[in-house]
Amino acid sequence: MIWTRKHLLDIESLSVEELATLLDTAMAFKSVGERAIKKVPALRGKTVVNLFVEPSTRTRISFELSEQRLSADIIDFTAEASSLKKGETLKDTARTLEALNADFIVIRHSASGAPHFLSRVLDAHVINAGDGAHEHPTQALLDMLTIREKKGRIAGLNVTILGDILYSRVARSDIWALTKLGAHVTLCGPSTLVPKSFERLGCRVTHRLEEAIRDADVINLLRIQHERQRRSMFPSLNEYVNLFGLSKQRLALTKPDAMIMHPGPVNRGVEIDSDIADGERSVILQQVTNGLAVRMAALFLINGGGGPQAVAV
Amino acid sequence: MIWTRKHLLDIESLSVEELATLLDTAMAFKSVGERAIKKVPALRGKTVVNLFVEPSTRTRISFELSEQRLSADIIDFTAEASSLKKGETLKDTARTLEALNADFIVIRHSASGAPHFLSRVLDAHVINAGDGAHEHPTQALLDMLTIREKKGRIAGLNVTILGDILYSRVARSDIWALTKLGAHVTLCGPSTLVPKSFERLGCRVTHRLEEAIRDADVINLLRIQHERQRRSMFPSLNEYVNLFGLSKQRLALTKPDAMIMHPGPVNRGVEIDSDIADGERSVILQQVTNGLAVRMAALFLINGGGGPQAVAV
Amino acid sequence: MIWTRKHLLDIESLSVEELATLLDTAMAFKSVGERAIKKVPALRGKTVVNLFVEPSTRTRISFELSEQRLSADIIDFTAEASSLKKGETLKDTARTLEALNADFIVIRHSASGAPHFLSRVLDAHVINAGDGAHEHPTQALLDMLTIREKKGRIAGLNVTILGDILYSRVARSDIWALTKLGAHVTLCGPSTLVPKSFERLGCRVTHRLEEAIRDADVINLLRIQHERQRRSMFPSLNEYVNLFGLSKQRLALTKPDAMIMHPGPVNRGVEIDSDIADGERSVILQQVTNGLAVRMAALFLINGGGGPQAVAV
Repeated sequence: MIWTRKHLLDIESLSVEELATLLDTAMAFKSVGERAIKKVPALRGKTVVNLFVEPSTRTRISFELSEQRLSADIIDFTAEASSLKKGETLKDTARTLEALNADFIVIRHSASGAPHFLSRVLDAHVINAGDGAHEHPTQALLDMLTIREKKGRIAGLNVTILGDILYSRVARSDIWALTKLGAHVTLCGPSTLVPKSFERLGCRVTHRLEEAIRDADVINLLRIQHERQRRSMFPSLNEYVNLFGLSKQRLALTKPDAMIMHPGPVNRGVEIDSDIADGERSVILQQVTNGLAVRMAALFLINGGGGPQAVAV
Repeated sequence: MIWTRKHLLDIESLSVEELATLLDTAMAFKSVGERAIKKVPALRGKTVVNLFVEPSTRTRISFELSEQRLSADIIDFTAEASSLKKGETLKDTARTLEALNADFIVIRHSASGAPHFLSRVLDAHVINAGDGAHEHPTQALLDMLTIREKKGRIAGLNVTILGDILYSRVARSDIWALTKLGAHVTLCGPSTLVPKSFERLGCRVTHRLEEAIRDADVINLLRIQHERQRRSMFPSLNEYVNLFGLSKQRLALTKPDAMIMHPGPVNRGVEIDSDIADGERSVILQQVTNGLAVRMAALFLINGGGGPQAVAV
Repeated sequence: MIWTRKHLLDIESLSVEELATLLDTAMAFKSVGERAIKKVPALRGKTVVNLFVEPSTRTRISFELSEQRLSADIIDFTAEASSLKKGETLKDTARTLEALNADFIVIRHSASGAPHFLSRVLDAHVINAGDGAHEHPTQALLDMLTIREKKGRIAGLNVTILGDILYSRVARSDIWALTKLGAHVTLCGPSTLVPKSFERLGCRVTHRLEEAIRDADVINLLRIQHERQRRSMFPSLNEYVNLFGLSKQRLALTKPDAMIMHPGPVNRGVEIDSDIADGERSVILQQVTNGLAVRMAALFLINGGGGPQAVAV
C-alpha cells in the first residue's frame, strides 16, 4: 500500500493494512540497529521537536535515538524549562515551534487529545507519544512487532492485559491494535480498574487472575504507578501483589510458551516477580529494541518515505 | 562590504553598512529554512557553546536550531546544572569552555555587559543572546528583517514601541537599529517605565497610547513580565490593560496597514487582544522564523564566512 | 601494542604499556582539536549514552564534546529526569539502554564499583567517568598527558597531591597512574584526610605543607568540596586555607619550575591563591584541553580503533 497519513495520532483510526505497513517497515528498520553504522539519511535536514509536556525518560530517549538514526536535527523541548509553565498556551508553543520550521512535533501530554488538537492547528507532522489516558500508539506498535516476531502471527492469539486498564493509554492502544489484528483480548485487574464496559471494545473482562492467564499466549503486565493511582479505586500495594502480581506459582499455571511483556520500567516484586522479568519467557528488552524500529518506521512513513521496500538504504 | 567583526555584542556599535550586511545575509539564509534539507556545512567541525545563565526557552532553541542548520557541534551549558551555581566565576567558566576548543560562546546573562566582558578575556567569538536590560541584538535584527520584508524598507517608517521600555533590552536594541536605519521611533507606556530621557536617543516619548499608535506603520508590543516587574513602578495588571493593552477598539484607530509585532511569548489579553495576535496584521510568527535566519547570518559572518553572496551553498 | 580491553574502568588494572598507548593515542587526537574542522568519523553511527547518576557539568561536557568530535550519536541520560529516581535499579536502567543498541555507556555514579558492575551485566563498552571515592581514570589520564607534555616525562618526577586524599577518586587514580609510570608521589593534607595507610600504595605521606612542596616538580591541588566534606574530619575552611592553601609566600618555597595542577573548578582563595591559578606556572586550562584528547583516545581504543598510528584520519 501507499502510505498517505500525515500524522500518527492513535491506533483506533488506523486500518489493518496501515498497521501491517507500519510493522513491515519497522522490521526493515530493525536491521539498521544491528549494523556497525546505525544511521540512514532519511530525515537529514529535517527538524523534529520532542515536545514532552509530561515527563518521560524512556519514550523520549527512544524517540531521540530513532530521530538521530534517521539523521534528523532534533530539538528537545521539555515543559520544565519552557514558557508553557509561564502560562503560554499549547497552541502558541506549537505554532512557535512550527515557525522555527519544525517538520515533526512528537508530543507527550497529560491531556487526552492534545496531539489531535495540534494536528488541526499545525502544518507539521504530529506523532502522539502518549496523551493522558487515551492512546500511546508507538507503544502498541512495538508490542505488536514483538508479538509477531516471537509468535509468528497475531491473529488468533490469546492476549491478556493485566493491571490498571481504566487509566492506561498503553492498554487502550494495545486493545485497538490487537483486536484489529485478530487477537482475542482478555483484560484483568481489580474490578474498580477493569470495568465491564470494556467488553464493548471486543474484549473479555475478568477479575480473576487464574482465569485470565490460563489460556494466554501473551501476558502483558502494565506498570503499577502507585504514586499516581487514585487512592479510592486502587487496593493497597500488598493487596494488589497478592491478587494480581505475577509470581512463580502463578506462572506455573500458564501455557509453557506464554510470553511475558511489560512496557517498563518494571516494579520488581509488584506486578511481576524479579526472576520472571529476567527469565526466558520475558521479552521486555526486545520490546525496548523494537521501540526504536517502530518509531523510525513511523517517522519515515509519515515523512512520505514510501513503504517497507523503500528502507533499503 | 567585507565583514570584520569578531563578535556580535550589541547593535549600538554597528554601522548602518554592517546592519545592512547582516540583514542581507539573513535573507540569503531564509531560503535554507524553506528547503527540503535545511542544512549547510558552514560551521561543520566548529564548537558552539550556548551559555544561558538566565533561562530562556525560545531564544535558546532558536540559536540551537540555527547552529544545527550550520552543522556545528553544540554544547548546551545552562546555569542550573553548572558549577556557576557552586560559586565559580563567569570568567572561569568561560575560559574552561574555551579550553574545550569552543569556537563560539552564545551568552545570555542577567548582568548587562557580560558578553562584552567575555569578549575581552576569550579568544572565542562571542554572541550576545540578551544581557540584563542592556541589549538583545539578534532580536533587533529579526525585528528589522521582518519590517523590511513586510514594508519593503525601514527608513522613514513610523515605529512605535509599547510597554516597559526602561527595563527592556529588546527596546534598547530596537531603538538603536531603527534610528540607525532611519525610522521615526515613538516610545509609549506608563511614565514610570518610559522616562523622557529616552528622547536623547532620538525617540519621541509619549504616555498616551492613542497618540503613539495613530500614525504608526509598525507597532511593537513588549512582553509584560508582571512577575518580574518592579512593583513600585508598575501599575496593576488591570490598569495596564486598560491604559495600554492593544484592544480591537484601539486597533481601529491605527492605519489600516499598521503591522503588529511582539517578541513572544504573548500574554493574550494583557498587552494584546488574542484575536489581534492571531490576526492578519500580526507578524509574530514571521518574527520567529526570521530569528533563525538572522542567527545563522550572525554566526556565519563572524566566523568569517563572507557576505550574503557567499551563502550560496 | 594491540589494544584489547573492552572497557575503561580504572587505572589500577592497566599495564604501563596500556597507559602509554592511551597517552600516545591522546597526543594524536590533540591535533584534531586544533584543526579548522574538529571532527573525525571514527564513531559514526555508534550510540554513546552518558549516564550521569551523580551531577557533573565539566566532565559531562568534556565527554559529550569528545563524542561529538568522533561523530557518535549521543544520548544524555541524567538521573534527575530518569526513572532511576522512581526506584528503578541501575541494572534495569543499563540493560534498557543496551536494548536501545547503546554501544558505549559512560557512567558517573556515587557508588564505588558501579562501572565494574555494569561491565559484568552488559555487552556494551563501559567507561568510568568517576565512581564514588574509587577512581576517575580519564582525569588521571589527562593529568598524565599534561605532565608529560610540560615536563617531557613522568618517570623520576616528584609529584605532590594536596588536599582531601581519603575521599578523592582523582587522588586514587592519579596515585595509580603516577606510581606505575615511575613518579615519586607525596600526599599531603590534614591528618584525618591523609592517613598513613596510603604509604602502602608506594606514596610518601606528610601533613606538613612545606615538606610536601619543597622538592615537587608538580603540585596537584584537589578541589575542596567543603559542602560535601565530612564535618567531623575536616577542619574549618579558614584553618584549611591557613595550613594548606597555596599562597604566594608558599609558592616561593617551591622549585622555580614546579607546575601547578587542579582538576577544577577552582575555589579561588581556598586551595589556591587566585593569582597562582591564573599564573604562568598553572596548567589548569591545558588540563581541560587534554581532557578532550584522552576521552577521544579512550573511546577510540576500546571501540577497537587500533593504536595511535591509526588516528590519522
